[in-house]
Amino acid sequence: MEAVRFDLSPSEIPETWYNMAADLDYVAPALSPATGEPVTRDDMLRTMPEALVDQELSREPEFEIPGEVRQFYAQWRPTPLIRARNLEKALDTPARIYFKYEGVGPTGSFKPNSAIPQAYYNKRAGKSGLIAETGAGQWGSAISFAASLFGMAAKVFMVRVSFQQKPHHRSLMQMFGASCTPSPSTETEAGRAVLDENPDFPGSLSVAKSEALQVAFADPRWGYTRGSALNHVCAHQTVIGQEAIVQMERAGDYPDIVVACAGGGSNLAGLAFPFLRARLHGGPDVRLIAAEPAACPSLTQGRIAYDYSDTAGLTSLTRTHTLGHRFVPPPVHAGGLRAHNIAPLVSRVVEEGLMEAVALRQRDCFEAGVLFTRTEGIVPAPESTHAIRAAVDEALRAREEGVTRTILFGLSGHGNFDLSAYERYLGGTLADDSIDPQALEIGRNSIPVLAGAAS
Amino acid sequence: MEAVRFDLSPSEIPETWYNMAADLDYVAPALSPATGEPVTRDDMLRTMPEALVDQELSREPEFEIPGEVRQFYAQWRPTPLIRARNLEKALDTPARIYFKYEGVGPTGSFKPNSAIPQAYYNKRAGKSGLIAETGAGQWGSAISFAASLFGMAAKVFMVRVSFQQKPHHRSLMQMFGASCTPSPSTETEAGRAVLDENPDFPGSLSVAKSEALQVAFADPRWGYTRGSALNHVCAHQTVIGQEAIVQMERAGDYPDIVVACAGGGSNLAGLAFPFLRARLHGGPDVRLIAAEPAACPSLTQGRIAYDYSDTAGLTSLTRTHTLGHRFVPPPVHAGGLRAHNIAPLVSRVVEEGLMEAVALRQRDCFEAGVLFTRTEGIVPAPESTHAIRAAVDEALRAREEGVTRTILFGLSGHGNFDLSAYERYLGGTLADDSIDPQALEIGRNSIPVLAGAAS
Repeated sequence: MEAVRFDLSPSEIPETWYNMAADLDYVAPALSPATGEPVTRDDMLRTMPEALVDQELSREPEFEIPGEVRQFYAQWRPTPLIRARNLEKALDTPARIYFKYEGVGPTGSFKPNSAIPQAYYNKRAGKSGLIAETGAGQWGSAISFAASLFGMAAKVFMVRVSFQQKPHHRSLMQMFGASCTPSPSTETEAGRAVLDENPDFPGSLSVAKSEALQVAFADPRWGYTRGSALNHVCAHQTVIGQEAIVQMERAGDYPDIVVACAGGGSNLAGLAFPFLRARLHGGPDVRLIAAEPAACPSLTQGRIAYDYSDTAGLTSLTRTHTLGHRFVPPPVHAGGLRAHNIAPLVSRVVEEGLMEAVALRQRDCFEAGVLFTRTEGIVPAPESTHAIRAAVDEALRAREEGVTRTILFGLSGHGNFDLSAYERYLGGTLADDSIDPQALEIGRNSIPVLAGAAS
Repeated sequence: MEAVRFDLSPSEIPETWYNMAADLDYVAPALSPATGEPVTRDDMLRTMPEALVDQELSREPEFEIPGEVRQFYAQWRPTPLIRARNLEKALDTPARIYFKYEGVGPTGSFKPNSAIPQAYYNKRAGKSGLIAETGAGQWGSAISFAASLFGMAAKVFMVRVSFQQKPHHRSLMQMFGASCTPSPSTETEAGRAVLDENPDFPGSLSVAKSEALQVAFADPRWGYTRGSALNHVCAHQTVIGQEAIVQMERAGDYPDIVVACAGGGSNLAGLAFPFLRARLHGGPDVRLIAAEPAACPSLTQGRIAYDYSDTAGLTSLTRTHTLGHRFVPPPVHAGGLRAHNIAPLVSRVVEEGLMEAVALRQRDCFEAGVLFTRTEGIVPAPESTHAIRAAVDEALRAREEGVTRTILFGLSGHGNFDLSAYERYLGGTLADDSIDPQALEIGRNSIPVLAGAAS
């Protein structure tokens, strides 16, 4: 029997998270919106438990994973690494294609990798509830589950268009006992301001973030959580790539190309950073590819600049690829990839030429997603289809060039809650992405011009 | 770290399927509806490839699993065996609760365990398409996936009420390229006859079966497939229990109780029969429990008699617990458990006192399903919640009695496609089961009275 699955035992769950910041020459400090000066530790402690602040600011290469967190990870980790033999055959490619599948865990995506430690640290810091914003719903579900595990309340602001289009993610949060509010809502000043301007506003991740932050600022019992972008979130996700390296070795193979979808950046960071670390420390060469949606192309069309992560300008300013905090992407389905900017660590890695980025159109991604379903039997999350598309393109290139290549992609979650989007795709009615040039313009104009900031 | 997951490597996938018929003193032959005499090999060859007929009639204890089938199994098997520590804590029980999770594979249920070998044997027998009926949609999805793997067409008749209530299962079949028709349909005589009598008939598994059989009889390019009940289907599913035995040993534990939900019976057979085999051959004692819905209680309220498996009386007659082939269960959600009769091998095992049965109400099952979701992070299929409910009841009994017991239940699939039912449950609008006494009466009166049949 040909081996197609390379499993690890629960005792092989990594013991530490990897911090990419340790291997970069320069990590730009976040700036306070009030002063324009670097955010202090005390500033950060307003919305983050001390342990997470320490991780956020650290240049150490590794953080120990608490025993209780590893114990919860053991419910579903290590996740499988699978060789997509049927997909290879369908593509008639000499390339070997592997995927690391994060959809087997609770809530069906990679998000619990960080939701569980964030719940753990917030609980220890005395918080009784967790609050979050969510786009596609995957972070919201993960936080709802993590809160339920730790006996905490959960409140989630969900981008309104996703709330309406994705009732299943909302139901899932309710299954976990969480409350889920469509954003913009009338519950917060930030929400009301947006609704005053445009009552039909479809919502955006950054408006939802403003709302969640305002609730957290108003009531210290809530711990505000981050689904992506921040250094510590990227670190938590590196269990994915660390496991994948051991699994590839066990497969007697090693990737020439590693590809993952890029929204806020933590899924991509989770898979790619450990491979980059290995490469930077004398390990095998490997091409890293960020696959982002053409509808929200921060890495391929954004500027590198200091910008807010929310619409209302409540967050600190980070130096990253950004489309501008007032950029609103078209309401395409891949909700988890609708962030106007990306994790500063991912941005820096791209800026330094250590990683490439491609922007992919939604219908092309769904086409690859359907092919993957028919060959491997797993319906991929719409977000994950971006990675599949990029991997398929590379496999077809290998066929054209007549060379063997090993391609590893991240299957960040299943799409069992997204079948209605596939129905629209198969029925020919799924919208493709086209950005309103005015939206791009509005976004660009919203990027702050900071005196003295090293943008 | 406390071990909560007991994984096996793909090389530990069983090499044979176990045939319960080998360990029973009496296995009643199926009877031909035309003659009342035992069905001949030739009769069976009309709708079944030779290899499956051999398995169906065999009293040998083991059938070798073809290499190609094991290779496909290796995409997701062996499935995990997980200790539900969080559920145990929530119940404050001294019992140890384990579950064998079949939802990690393609299509999210145990069904591919038999869909793949059935596709394999039908392909080898020259069939170019697979045809099936489906209730909840899980068999339909599995057959659609298996057909896609082997480059075959797939056509599925889906019980109309499920077709309407469960659009996601239908979409999933379409994702695999299958055609899915609500039953009763106007495509077949059997469907038209039912619609003439009652145009609003919600559909039933046995009507859908009549339709699928008529299409298969009319065109020999279609291979008719069976989702449950038959001896060979039960055998294919025994990979579940065989793996579980090794995993329980690896956990340093062994179940006192094994419980699984019972509809057609193959999921239950798959988990329980290998444990029963071990017990019959001098292995540890173990209580086996079939958890069936109060809405369709074949084992607890049915008679043991020869009966058809479809409404139109096209199938052979098998001796089994039956509510009568004209029994129509109320349209509750747990669609996969809506069969009027059960696998003859399961029936015989219950008749001989080797297995118990309990009938459980839908809302009680959903209650257990929500508790399981909040503690273990996996949304169970509505069918599987019957096993969870029975396991929870046993765990609570262990607490009352102050004894430690090891309970293993089968989590036959995830409920990611069934969130709307959970929404109804949480909103208080999910119907509970109540059988129309008239439906029971109609069912009972439809059980054939056969001269000379050993009922």
